[in-house]
Amino acid sequence: MKLNDGFLTAISSLLPASQVLTDSVSIALYAQDWSNVLVPHAKAILFPKTTLEVSQILKIATLHHQTIVPSGGRTGLSGGAVATQNEVVLSLEKLNFIGPIHEGSLSLHVGAGAITEAVHDHCKPYGLTWPVDFASKGSSQVGGNIATNAGGVRVLRYGSTRNWVLGLTSVTMDGTVHQFNGELEKNNTGVDFRHLLIGSEGILAVITEATLKLCALPQSRLVFLFALENFSEVVKLFSYARKNILNLSAFECMDEACFQVTTRHLGITPPLKAPTQNGHGTYVLLEIQNENFERAEKWLTEVFENDYVSDGVMAQSEKDVETFWKIREGIAESILHNHEVHQEDVSVPIQKLEAFYSDIHSRYQKEYSEYEIFFFGHIGDGNLHVFIRKPKTMDSSQFIKMAHESDLKLFETLAQYHGSVSAEHGIGLLKKHAIHFSRTPLELQMFMKLKSIFDPQGLLNPGKIIQ
Amino acid sequence: MKLNDGFLTAISSLLPASQVLTDSVSIALYAQDWSNVLVPHAKAILFPKTTLEVSQILKIATLHHQTIVPSGGRTGLSGGAVATQNEVVLSLEKLNFIGPIHEGSLSLHVGAGAITEAVHDHCKPYGLTWPVDFASKGSSQVGGNIATNAGGVRVLRYGSTRNWVLGLTSVTMDGTVHQFNGELEKNNTGVDFRHLLIGSEGILAVITEATLKLCALPQSRLVFLFALENFSEVVKLFSYARKNILNLSAFECMDEACFQVTTRHLGITPPLKAPTQNGHGTYVLLEIQNENFERAEKWLTEVFENDYVSDGVMAQSEKDVETFWKIREGIAESILHNHEVHQEDVSVPIQKLEAFYSDIHSRYQKEYSEYEIFFFGHIGDGNLHVFIRKPKTMDSSQFIKMAHESDLKLFETLAQYHGSVSAEHGIGLLKKHAIHFSRTPLELQMFMKLKSIFDPQGLLNPGKIIQ
Repeated sequence: MKLNDGFLTAISSLLPASQVLTDSVSIALYAQDWSNVLVPHAKAILFPKTTLEVSQILKIATLHHQTIVPSGGRTGLSGGAVATQNEVVLSLEKLNFIGPIHEGSLSLHVGAGAITEAVHDHCKPYGLTWPVDFASKGSSQVGGNIATNAGGVRVLRYGSTRNWVLGLTSVTMDGTVHQFNGELEKNNTGVDFRHLLIGSEGILAVITEATLKLCALPQSRLVFLFALENFSEVVKLFSYARKNILNLSAFECMDEACFQVTTRHLGITPPLKAPTQNGHGTYVLLEIQNENFERAEKWLTEVFENDYVSDGVMAQSEKDVETFWKIREGIAESILHNHEVHQEDVSVPIQKLEAFYSDIHSRYQKEYSEYEIFFFGHIGDGNLHVFIRKPKTMDSSQFIKMAHESDLKLFETLAQYHGSVSAEHGIGLLKKHAIHFSRTPLELQMFMKLKSIFDPQGLLNPGKIIQ
Repeated sequence: MKLNDGFLTAISSLLPASQVLTDSVSIALYAQDWSNVLVPHAKAILFPKTTLEVSQILKIATLHHQTIVPSGGRTGLSGGAVATQNEVVLSLEKLNFIGPIHEGSLSLHVGAGAITEAVHDHCKPYGLTWPVDFASKGSSQVGGNIATNAGGVRVLRYGSTRNWVLGLTSVTMDGTVHQFNGELEKNNTGVDFRHLLIGSEGILAVITEATLKLCALPQSRLVFLFALENFSEVVKLFSYARKNILNLSAFECMDEACFQVTTRHLGITPPLKAPTQNGHGTYVLLEIQNENFERAEKWLTEVFENDYVSDGVMAQSEKDVETFWKIREGIAESILHNHEVHQEDVSVPIQKLEAFYSDIHSRYQKEYSEYEIFFFGHIGDGNLHVFIRKPKTMDSSQFIKMAHESDLKLFETLAQYHGSVSAEHGIGLLKKHAIHFSRTPLELQMFMKLKSIFDPQGLLNPGKIIQ
């Protein structure tokens, strides 16, 4: 694509030079996300500081037929915020104000560029939190969380990001500023466009501000690390826990390979002793909030008496809590460290999880025995992550070919279980080839029609999800 | 409109006579809802028993250009399911299966016609519930709850109906059956059409089946009835309660007029003694789930020591709990009993509730002193109901004229507070004139475009919300 000077000239009379970057280092950084697979190629990065500036930029873009890629913390893993076709990246990172907390309504107005963890830190002194929580919270931004309906480690207790957004300010390509739902808890006045934008990965409008719904920080938490023989035992423990533990706030699972590689990479002494050289088999991190110790002890006794687990330990200090969580949240980075990795993020209805796991696990063991394969995930959401490491001796193109063949089989199995090819990472560019396993052709047609209502010229985040 | 024989003839070869009613008594019943303001006028009532039958009916309807009004328990208060223009009413009441409960995934598949309370009763033996709960649960149906994103008395704890629907089966006018989201907890594969249909009041597609998300029944509950001097005190108590009570599950408010008329109508001895002839002023029903008694006693002491309330009583038995809730849930029917009533259902951001109430309350007192006016609502959701009784001596048309004038002022005030003209009752036919106070002209245009994607001929629930 040739450089569209008209657009940048018009922008230069709107934004100061400090809000426009065009150098190749910045483009390599801002046109890429954590998937790191696609080759970034962008014309410029713009850094609006207000919703008004976003509106002005989009008006100019429409005038010049300039494509735009909205961009947050770029922690995505599906290429949803990657620019590959000389688009202009619209970074929201300077639109990052965090407003005052309303303690009566438990709400907080922020810019789309506010960092997730900064929001947590802001709320903490009030005994409050925005319960959207996951490993990349130190980099991810609120706008990106909303655009991808981010999941994470406490969906089991709080639900996805969708549940924690009261109002959205967004801008369509024609420059119109939309304010959906204000700060209302209840507003049944027709279709709720807020929920259309949540999870739409920036293809309909640019999210610029949000009113977040907050909740009380837990007053206390008990965190356990359990060892179990196999995945069937994990599912059994989950069924027991969900039924018997009132304030279950996390139920995370990882296999032996994840546990080994993570404790080794992070230099953590395994909190549970391995009975054999092969370790335990599988592990569960279980968290309970606001529970009294007596009640917790009662079910802990039951868990051991009924042989639900083969070993287990309860965090005895805040440091232990941190260590257990560090293991869980360090899995992805530990697997990725110094390795090329192919990753999947799938989900099935929870009652089918055990059968699904059994199906795919035995296939991987049989057909891909030469690879290091890692399983972990959010069992309570029916969500499994599968990571495959490229053997050092294999070349990249061969690995990618193998991964695609393997994926096809995974997705075919998934479709039989009515599962999702992207439980929480979104579709972006990297999962487009798989979307038809989870959505019907008719749904994809409806996406296109929806897209044409919001962005008739197809200038916003082009090529993502559909097209 | 003239009778469209072609449609009914085609239907008669699809459905047995027992699934088609055309008599005037049935039409008066099935073409009407609890608002009871509009004159029902329908051609026939159809009772499909399966999603397939719904699909076949809608195909035939499209062929004959026949308008359709989907219909549930008809407990709506905005005329969203009323047929006034010789439409065909599509009652889902025979599509009312309730499937087996999946205890692992806490999910339940039901037909749209399943009665809300029947779903509760079905779940109870498993220690589970579908936490959508309100006064008309004995008649309302799941499909209607979803189509209106029903609120109710426990939104504060569980959120609206939207949060408790895993999957939706629906049928568009062309007869296509859509299955949105299956039974997945997490599925980030583009726009979530499920959330488009939830709250769309049957103008896009007919909801025929749903997979509901369940949760554990509370193991215990403590219910209090407090008396307070005025609404400012109510807001103060709410702020305190929300911050200090971990498992607050309901915070309902009613004024003295509601309390008097309800206890009298239901023949309930007031659980709190009135200090003067004028009573206390205002009342709060507060419910806490799964709380230990010691912690509850501690804050109860605080509540009294800080003079948050002027009087209060805790339910001492399950019978007390029932009585307190009976008062709250009996308000609407008690006000309506033998009276013509004009009702409003509005909401504002919670932090603005006190100022908003003060504004409208003083205006009603000043300008409408000759009317009996009742205020009650779900304070925790920023949601107030205002009911005005027609004086016995006034004629209906004069009352309606007054109510409309009064509404106009209410809505103007509401718009200043960025509130909703329909917090939980929906727009239907009766709130259409007010929708522009809560939604922009551009949003209404977008509604129309959305409608044309799903129902290009405009045959489904015509005239509702928009048009």
